[in-house]
Amino acid sequence: MHAYRSHTCAELNKDNVGETVRLSGWVHRIRDHGGLLFIDLRDHFGITQVMADPDSPVFKEIEKVRSEWCIRIDGNVMARDESLVNEKLPTGEIEVFIRDIEVLGAANELPLMVFGDQEYPEDTRLKYRYLDLRREKMQENMKLRSDVVSSMRKRMWDKGFREYQTPIITASSPEGARDFLVPSRLHPGKFYALPQAPQQFKQLIMVSGYDKYFQIAPCFRDEDPRADRSPTDFYQLDLEMSFVEQQDVFDTIQPVITGIFEEFGKGRKVDQTWEQISYRDAALWYGTDKPDLRNPIKMQVVSEHFKGSGFAIFAKLLENEGTEVRAIPAPTGGGRKFCDRMNAFAQKEGLPGMGYIFWRKQSADSIAQERGITVKEVNALIKSGEIVLGEEAAGPLAKNIGPERTEAIRQQLGLGVGDAAFFLGGKPKAFETVAGKARAVIGDELGLTDLNRFAFAWIVDFPIYERDEETGKIDFEHNPFSMPQGGMAALDGDPEDVLGYQYDLACNGYELVSGAIRNHRPEIMFKAFEIAGYGKDEVEKRFGGMVNAFQYGAPPHGGCAAGVDRIVMLLADADNLRDVIMFPMNQRAEDVMMGAPSLPMNEQMRELSLRVVPQES
Amino acid sequence: MHAYRSHTCAELNKDNVGETVRLSGWVHRIRDHGGLLFIDLRDHFGITQVMADPDSPVFKEIEKVRSEWCIRIDGNVMARDESLVNEKLPTGEIEVFIRDIEVLGAANELPLMVFGDQEYPEDTRLKYRYLDLRREKMQENMKLRSDVVSSMRKRMWDKGFREYQTPIITASSPEGARDFLVPSRLHPGKFYALPQAPQQFKQLIMVSGYDKYFQIAPCFRDEDPRADRSPTDFYQLDLEMSFVEQQDVFDTIQPVITGIFEEFGKGRKVDQTWEQISYRDAALWYGTDKPDLRNPIKMQVVSEHFKGSGFAIFAKLLENEGTEVRAIPAPTGGGRKFCDRMNAFAQKEGLPGMGYIFWRKQSADSIAQERGITVKEVNALIKSGEIVLGEEAAGPLAKNIGPERTEAIRQQLGLGVGDAAFFLGGKPKAFETVAGKARAVIGDELGLTDLNRFAFAWIVDFPIYERDEETGKIDFEHNPFSMPQGGMAALDGDPEDVLGYQYDLACNGYELVSGAIRNHRPEIMFKAFEIAGYGKDEVEKRFGGMVNAFQYGAPPHGGCAAGVDRIVMLLADADNLRDVIMFPMNQRAEDVMMGAPSLPMNEQMRELSLRVVPQES
Repeated sequence: MHAYRSHTCAELNKDNVGETVRLSGWVHRIRDHGGLLFIDLRDHFGITQVMADPDSPVFKEIEKVRSEWCIRIDGNVMARDESLVNEKLPTGEIEVFIRDIEVLGAANELPLMVFGDQEYPEDTRLKYRYLDLRREKMQENMKLRSDVVSSMRKRMWDKGFREYQTPIITASSPEGARDFLVPSRLHPGKFYALPQAPQQFKQLIMVSGYDKYFQIAPCFRDEDPRADRSPTDFYQLDLEMSFVEQQDVFDTIQPVITGIFEEFGKGRKVDQTWEQISYRDAALWYGTDKPDLRNPIKMQVVSEHFKGSGFAIFAKLLENEGTEVRAIPAPTGGGRKFCDRMNAFAQKEGLPGMGYIFWRKQSADSIAQERGITVKEVNALIKSGEIVLGEEAAGPLAKNIGPERTEAIRQQLGLGVGDAAFFLGGKPKAFETVAGKARAVIGDELGLTDLNRFAFAWIVDFPIYERDEETGKIDFEHNPFSMPQGGMAALDGDPEDVLGYQYDLACNGYELVSGAIRNHRPEIMFKAFEIAGYGKDEVEKRFGGMVNAFQYGAPPHGGCAAGVDRIVMLLADADNLRDVIMFPMNQRAEDVMMGAPSLPMNEQMRELSLRVVPQES
Repeated sequence: MHAYRSHTCAELNKDNVGETVRLSGWVHRIRDHGGLLFIDLRDHFGITQVMADPDSPVFKEIEKVRSEWCIRIDGNVMARDESLVNEKLPTGEIEVFIRDIEVLGAANELPLMVFGDQEYPEDTRLKYRYLDLRREKMQENMKLRSDVVSSMRKRMWDKGFREYQTPIITASSPEGARDFLVPSRLHPGKFYALPQAPQQFKQLIMVSGYDKYFQIAPCFRDEDPRADRSPTDFYQLDLEMSFVEQQDVFDTIQPVITGIFEEFGKGRKVDQTWEQISYRDAALWYGTDKPDLRNPIKMQVVSEHFKGSGFAIFAKLLENEGTEVRAIPAPTGGGRKFCDRMNAFAQKEGLPGMGYIFWRKQSADSIAQERGITVKEVNALIKSGEIVLGEEAAGPLAKNIGPERTEAIRQQLGLGVGDAAFFLGGKPKAFETVAGKARAVIGDELGLTDLNRFAFAWIVDFPIYERDEETGKIDFEHNPFSMPQGGMAALDGDPEDVLGYQYDLACNGYELVSGAIRNHRPEIMFKAFEIAGYGKDEVEKRFGGMVNAFQYGAPPHGGCAAGVDRIVMLLADADNLRDVIMFPMNQRAEDVMMGAPSLPMNEQMRELSLRVVPQES
């Protein structure tokens, strides 16, 4: 018999009754039923109930074992009484009577229980990660992550892509975030950097004629602590293709993503048709370039209705150039309590507040007031059918702008009795973000957001440049490698009007994929950088490897990168990245289990010609 | 029609004749046949001949293109004259008459030709890697590497393994080689390290209960320049399993390796049965723990035949303890010229020389001398059949030890006329390495080594400890995490006798795989370290993460790691690791294309609280 096991802990069933078997695993749970000892023996695959009574030749040894000891047992498979069959367990029809036991690895007292659902502080979980990782949810998450990555690879291979590894110890490439540096021992005073992304290398692979590249690529960024982000590194499904336009990239990645979400989404709906929304429309409709489209609310411009209206704040504001009033429709939100809460939310987010209108069924009171008759008279007219109660608008805003404008707004937004609308005014940049947040809260609170769905849309037509509001300086809005729509000619106009072949995929409020058709023409690239204030020398210094390559027959190419950690997190329904990473750093970028970072040895510092200096404050 | 191509450059054949097509690719070769221009248009997939004559509407533009320009052409598919069909090309039946052309990316004058087999200095190849990578052999190598890695993954999945990613930014773990350090910005003065291997993490994954792990893992070592090694990083197929013994690991990895070599070995023979050779036998038989078993030569101990013999050097030497005389049999090497050359080889390697004996057909001369008769008389006896010529031993050694001992040696080694044997004596450690090299040279020069074969053997039973010859101190021979054979009890005896469950796979003279059954019992681990002079504190400081984990129910586990770069190199028949890596460092650990390592910016050094100090000399 094998030294450790004849079966895993998920294999035995009533067909094995009578067999002598050998199992190895961890003591998940022990129950003592008056001299009868039951142990749930757990391995990676499942749980088998093993048991002993005082007649067992090794009862004394079995009595000694404790939770999470790793043991091997030999025993006989016995059928359970029908009343004791556990249908939830694949091995629930049997139990194993222990004949022999060997302790493979004993355990100290546990700082963290594997069995059960008790919550532990994150640093305990990370320090004893090997115990945390034994817990059922973490086992599920890690298997899911591994299976998702495998499935990505298979899907990419099926599409004719090959995976090529790009360097991890490489040159510093200022792409926006901070590099991790690696001091060189052989070249004292010089440093390598860990790649923020394989961006330049994948473009070089295209210039090298490899046509289709992908990689499950580790990316390294020295980030300041932020709850929703790993402080050191993350993985992306990175891909690049030659001789393609934007739609070709979409047609390549969409079936990969939908396939993954269908395969691992546990039945949640997966959008099959992905809308393409321009960056400007996304900002208008959703207040963000990563909208959550499970939420049906779409904002609209309603400036016309407020121009010259009795609501002085908006009317005045609209006299300034570049201002707008936008409405957030809130179907079913028509109640003063809800509307006041949302107004308070806007104030908490730093705005003066959000005006609102809500629509309710007309009351006899208000008709009486309107017509100058008594409520009694109104009730009589209702009874006789001469008055039919319609809807009426409530809220201070409605009063200020009057019924006609209010009605026009209602019609534009397609709202009715029981609904509400919120209004924000000013320069869109100043309120868009809050508007987006309000839209999300409204969708959540009113239960409009379909939580059982993965909703996708491409956000396209990103502007290449943005103007710094304070300095007036033009700089790149995203990464500087995208091809401007319209090519060289487009760069002759107003930089703020230049759109790029650049795109993001939004899913449930996250940016899941980001990519572009690249600018592969050196002359257009130099011009694009010049507009942002970078001279030719600067470009060659910063991106020399790639820019030189473009002088030797560069093909048109483009691609994208999908966030692996984020995708797994969505699929696992986890709310913390660390729950889908085997050995994550804590938020202070420390590995408390392995003790990293740590003080170097003097010898190491000498070899690297480095000295630590007191930090300037 | 698609913006860039209706077909790849490998797709068109006579079924497409008459079609209008669009192709994109690189100008591989241009031939001007008196006004008729032929271009071999190349993409990742193949080559298509496109052509134009002065009647072509775009002839003038076509005349301008040069080698390695990236172009798009539209044209008509035409059948070639039967006499002009190129059977070597999948597209050899057709050519495309160009109607339109667009230059997608022009090229400067080339520092390196893609077409043809010209050799270039390595730094040129690495600086213009994107041109070098377009060459046919490099395209083949990179595709091979990608396909080998894919196949490894598929084979591991099929065996029930999951791939789990382990941290790249982690703790320093002194495993023998030098760490690359990464300064922490958030914790000034502290450093992370890049992992030399995921050794501790994969063991932690076993303690975490994941049963089977693998990873195509990048490993980082700050190595001094050496021709056959990447100075910064390499990839391994890393695997680990719980509840296994040594043979289980062998049974897992062997079919993966044989499968890979059969799939990509281009018909070369792949050993199906892998011998297990003890470390000591390997040293004796082959002079190395990574023998090339394509070479049939097996060394033998022949001390007995030299003890008290007339060959004073060996006879005397054998009076000292621990000495031996070993023979390298050299079938078909029986000629003075070859023997003298091998003797000179040994001298060049620092030994006093290699004694030899070779066997030839007896001559009438030597019989005449032996019997004290004339050559004429001998010839007469041969003619009458009274004398049959046998073999005779030649070389000074044979004379010194006399015919009986010489014959005994010949019989032990199973040699005959036309063969030779070489002899080395002393303490084995002093000559084993040279003996191993001599064996290789003999196999090569005599054509004994079967170059058309991948020959595998497990080298097992490595000693855990070795004694430093100078200091007498006991230290670990390999990595300190292996389980001693015999467990705790074995550690009570002579440390030099302790063997480990540790193994290497030798293939064609390389160490392709290395692994062990791990020491998962803290008490045995502490004892093992104690023998090597490391106290408990020291062990906990160095390997705290793992040692702590072993206190919480560690399962027995073991695994191995296979060198991906080396495997691809063998399959590609490359003699340089850089030929199977997309963007390798040069031997001075520089990336001359991207310019790494480089001087950091002052700002970066300030953020990291670091200063470069002049190196002590």
